[in-house]
Amino acid sequence: MEIHLPHLDSVFSTDCVIFGFEAGELKVLLIERNEEPFKDWYALPGNIVGPDESVDAAAQRILYELTGLHDLPMRQFHTFGEVNRHPQGRVVTIAYFALIRIGGQKDLMPITQYARKAFWHPVNDLPTLAFDHTEIFKRAFKKIRAKLNYEPIAFELLPEKFTLTQLQSLYEAVLSKQLDKRNFRKKMLSYGFLKELAEKQKGVSYRAAKLYKFDRRKYAKIFQNEIAS
Amino acid sequence: MEIHLPHLDSVFSTDCVIFGFEAGELKVLLIERNEEPFKDWYALPGNIVGPDESVDAAAQRILYELTGLHDLPMRQFHTFGEVNRHPQGRVVTIAYFALIRIGGQKDLMPITQYARKAFWHPVNDLPTLAFDHTEIFKRAFKKIRAKLNYEPIAFELLPEKFTLTQLQSLYEAVLSKQLDKRNFRKKMLSYGFLKELAEKQKGVSYRAAKLYKFDRRKYAKIFQNEIAS
Repeated sequence: MEIHLPHLDSVFSTDCVIFGFEAGELKVLLIERNEEPFKDWYALPGNIVGPDESVDAAAQRILYELTGLHDLPMRQFHTFGEVNRHPQGRVVTIAYFALIRIGGQKDLMPITQYARKAFWHPVNDLPTLAFDHTEIFKRAFKKIRAKLNYEPIAFELLPEKFTLTQLQSLYEAVLSKQLDKRNFRKKMLSYGFLKELAEKQKGVSYRAAKLYKFDRRKYAKIFQNEIAS
Repeated sequence: MEIHLPHLDSVFSTDCVIFGFEAGELKVLLIERNEEPFKDWYALPGNIVGPDESVDAAAQRILYELTGLHDLPMRQFHTFGEVNRHPQGRVVTIAYFALIRIGGQKDLMPITQYARKAFWHPVNDLPTLAFDHTEIFKRAFKKIRAKLNYEPIAFELLPEKFTLTQLQSLYEAVLSKQLDKRNFRKKMLSYGFLKELAEKQKGVSYRAAKLYKFDRRKYAKIFQNEIAS
């Protein structure tokens, strides 16, 4: 059966790359599409911006409709404007990313029929995604890798209280490489923005590790206006 | 006389914030508009993306047509998608910035009638610009201020060989504040990415200062994968 889809002429859309961290793995939020084009494919949550909504508002609305998540701290990172990126015509997409704590949300649940389901997928072994979404994902991943060195984004993915082992496994997942445990701890503690808590890890069968908190105020004090100080 | 302009429905445009540095002042490249809307106003170089060109290619074409500059290393920094940002209808604009050496280019010269002239304007005392261009400019300025702390963007604005006084005056211009000379020099030299040249400044009536070059390779070695090392 041949499928006839409307031609899109000069349309904008939003796509969201939402990262989460769970059980030592970095994950990305995907949907399974229930409509043409790319029916049954995995894709980033995205859709067309309406005539009467800002692009930023559209990104939030669309994410909500396709996954049930709302009010995420999404940041634009790139606009994809190649001529032939969409099979139905000229669609320029504004891409956003967010980093969130998996488990802080209720179960994922699409509100519209447009997505069959929404789910977390490990960033390793990602299948080819619909449209140019693989490229969009890769660019977002590269962006957060770079940011890891100059912004405290790691702490957006971790629970509020975390162990140094969890922090290291997050860094390893984002950088896709193993780090030396002693050096990593020494470096991380040397910055002075990790606050050691009196509490220890609970409910573990091995020796409970110390818990830490990220001290945002201290971080700001250390890194703001480095040169300007 | 009432002016009738066509209604624009779901259109994308590009706008460029080009920074330059000259005589101790940070400057931005503006055009004087020769067409409605905002005829006779100062504006960032920008226009509508054509149906058969990528957004990135359009940014280069439009900058060339309005200013005569071509092949600048432009980077997207934000897409402005508010519903009412353009008086003629729904126009989402993809904004780019670039940092260049003033004087490395030939004279500025618009190719189209759309701009009456193109010129450098100090970022201080900027008049209100056409459309939401003041907001676009401010966001770009904020971006390069932040980047100054974690990317070697200062050296894109300076001549290849520069004195520490020039470097400091650039930092002061971007950060809009005075810096302590001794601390600034100590800090800058401590990084190890400034290469002292045998040459000295020429053609100055006062004591000639040492010239430096930015060592990009060394910079990359020092700052890449900070945590991952």
